[in-house]
Amino acid sequence: MVVKYRVVKQAQSSKARIGEIITDHGKFETPAFMPVATAGAIKGVSPDEATDAGVEVILANTYHLYLRPGHRLIEKLGGLHRFMNWSGPILTDSGGFQIYSLSKLRTISADGVTFRSHIDGSTHFLSPEKVMEIQSALGADIVMALDECAPANADHDYMLNSVGLTEQWARRCMAHKKDDAQALFGIVQGGTYQELREMSAIGLVSMNFDGYALGGLSVGEDRSTREKIIRFTRELLPDNKPVYLMGVGTPEDILGSVNLGVDMFDCVIPTRNARNGMLFTSKGKLVIKNAQFAEDSAPIEEGCGCHVCSHYSRAYLRHLFLANEILAYRLNTIHNLYYYAKLMSKMRQAIREDRLAEFSRDFYAQRSNTEETRGAKTL
Amino acid sequence: MVVKYRVVKQAQSSKARIGEIITDHGKFETPAFMPVATAGAIKGVSPDEATDAGVEVILANTYHLYLRPGHRLIEKLGGLHRFMNWSGPILTDSGGFQIYSLSKLRTISADGVTFRSHIDGSTHFLSPEKVMEIQSALGADIVMALDECAPANADHDYMLNSVGLTEQWARRCMAHKKDDAQALFGIVQGGTYQELREMSAIGLVSMNFDGYALGGLSVGEDRSTREKIIRFTRELLPDNKPVYLMGVGTPEDILGSVNLGVDMFDCVIPTRNARNGMLFTSKGKLVIKNAQFAEDSAPIEEGCGCHVCSHYSRAYLRHLFLANEILAYRLNTIHNLYYYAKLMSKMRQAIREDRLAEFSRDFYAQRSNTEETRGAKTL
Repeated sequence: MVVKYRVVKQAQSSKARIGEIITDHGKFETPAFMPVATAGAIKGVSPDEATDAGVEVILANTYHLYLRPGHRLIEKLGGLHRFMNWSGPILTDSGGFQIYSLSKLRTISADGVTFRSHIDGSTHFLSPEKVMEIQSALGADIVMALDECAPANADHDYMLNSVGLTEQWARRCMAHKKDDAQALFGIVQGGTYQELREMSAIGLVSMNFDGYALGGLSVGEDRSTREKIIRFTRELLPDNKPVYLMGVGTPEDILGSVNLGVDMFDCVIPTRNARNGMLFTSKGKLVIKNAQFAEDSAPIEEGCGCHVCSHYSRAYLRHLFLANEILAYRLNTIHNLYYYAKLMSKMRQAIREDRLAEFSRDFYAQRSNTEETRGAKTL
Repeated sequence: MVVKYRVVKQAQSSKARIGEIITDHGKFETPAFMPVATAGAIKGVSPDEATDAGVEVILANTYHLYLRPGHRLIEKLGGLHRFMNWSGPILTDSGGFQIYSLSKLRTISADGVTFRSHIDGSTHFLSPEKVMEIQSALGADIVMALDECAPANADHDYMLNSVGLTEQWARRCMAHKKDDAQALFGIVQGGTYQELREMSAIGLVSMNFDGYALGGLSVGEDRSTREKIIRFTRELLPDNKPVYLMGVGTPEDILGSVNLGVDMFDCVIPTRNARNGMLFTSKGKLVIKNAQFAEDSAPIEEGCGCHVCSHYSRAYLRHLFLANEILAYRLNTIHNLYYYAKLMSKMRQAIREDRLAEFSRDFYAQRSNTEETRGAKTL
């Protein structure tokens, strides 16, 4: 089945909209947040817990799964969905970002990229065609074109070349696409240069991808620059395709980007921060190890409907965290995933009811109102 | 409510029997295995997962909970059951074993034991009375008298004194018992000296405890010596009280001890080994990281009814383990806890149907039949 996207509802006050993406593994509504299942597991939780927390779509890493356990192995065992026991939609990134952030001694040519594994130092070559083959073997529902994720401090000349390379690679990925059940997204690069973002977007849009991602953001640029680039680039992308902002981010960044017309997000923040004892609440962040929670019988957040808030106290969660119990990482992760899923659901509801502007005002107001946070504090 | 014990069925071919223990937090049948919730969490799993795996009763460590987060804190938050979200029966050990195995610079006097915390080096004093207070604050259903767990290589004179001290402490624990909802067990010591085991057992039995534990075993003695001591000591204990073999053990040791009339067991083996990638099957142990499982789509054990075997392949579990995913430790633990719970349930069924001897023969025969193990191997 071809992956389908349709706009369900356009907000009146902003570019925000509700969309629906239908895949062979079920459908999900956008704006959607995708937790990261780096190596074929959402760190800290099981698939059924993620589902219970409201997760509908996840992201897995091509780079990691290619290196370990290998895409051919996963294919042989029935694909990534079966391998990891996740029956919902999966998006796989192309590995571009990890090659630049994790691997060693990478060499980029027009043909592709040669790099050394961060696990064992072995040498590998990934081309656009190879990345498509890997993602096909994994059986993801949405796959990404290989891009060059240029360094944040790259100069204009470097970035110009990089945008050109990314466009060539995107074209080769499109040409190598064989499986119609997999939607293919192109990735807009260009750093913080508006004219390069424009060049990149125009080039990709002319190829008619199933969706468009904004790459190379959240790599060190300040928030207002990022917002400017998102706003500018979003205008260049067609409204009948989903737009995905890669690697973003905080609840604040997500809400801001939804208002700019972004539909999909992924980030390690909810899961990684959970493992570091940082919990999300509507009033801000809560650091569970703080002494003030030692005897606190309250849940992480009153009124939260997650499994953890229904069964465990802050005092117990603090104890588990200080005792390095595995259960600490897991319970924290369940809560944060629930928080993110619920936030997305509330945003969609607000769009549906034409009150996203009001929702956004309340969202930020609650966070600044720190005297009511029962000790929750911003990191 | 007073904790009650009754023998439901006596085996014909051995001392084995089915018993029932009724507590304020539900009842469980013996022979029973108690997974260890060291610090108020069964390592690697949640309470509901343990229940789903068939766990009915758990053990928590007085020593650990006293040091962190503190028994008064747990009492204030409603007791250990509520704190850790476990609604079934809990047995707490007295801390004796941990004081000798974990703490530093311990000094034993007739009054009690002074030791330094293994966590922060702080100095603490535990007396029989204090240990009873701690266990009362925790709210366990079954509590243990404070004992001296003498070194395995202690000579006869040391052990003679130790047995005397353990008896005095047991008497003081009994005198300090205030809560009838908590059953109190005495701990028989005496190392591998039959006459000291006899002295210890006779002394404790005269005090009419709610149950009797065999302590100081599985501390380095060989299996035949241990079996001899269990057999000998068990004969000295009343048949109308439950008998608990502390810190034991492997499936083989448990089955052997059930045949000698032991009713209760605890051990870190199923949970700790799980975290080390060692899985139990009816055909022996399976080391999940072994290369032979790399592409193995089979579950840990065909026919196993656990959640893990119903949803995940050996190949995936191996991948998770090699990638150090938290989910690896958890899924492995679920399987091992299920294996242990199922084993106990099968033993009880065999006793009920007067075929424990046959069950025991089959149990050992399956394990020696290694060519059928699909790669399962004994560590």
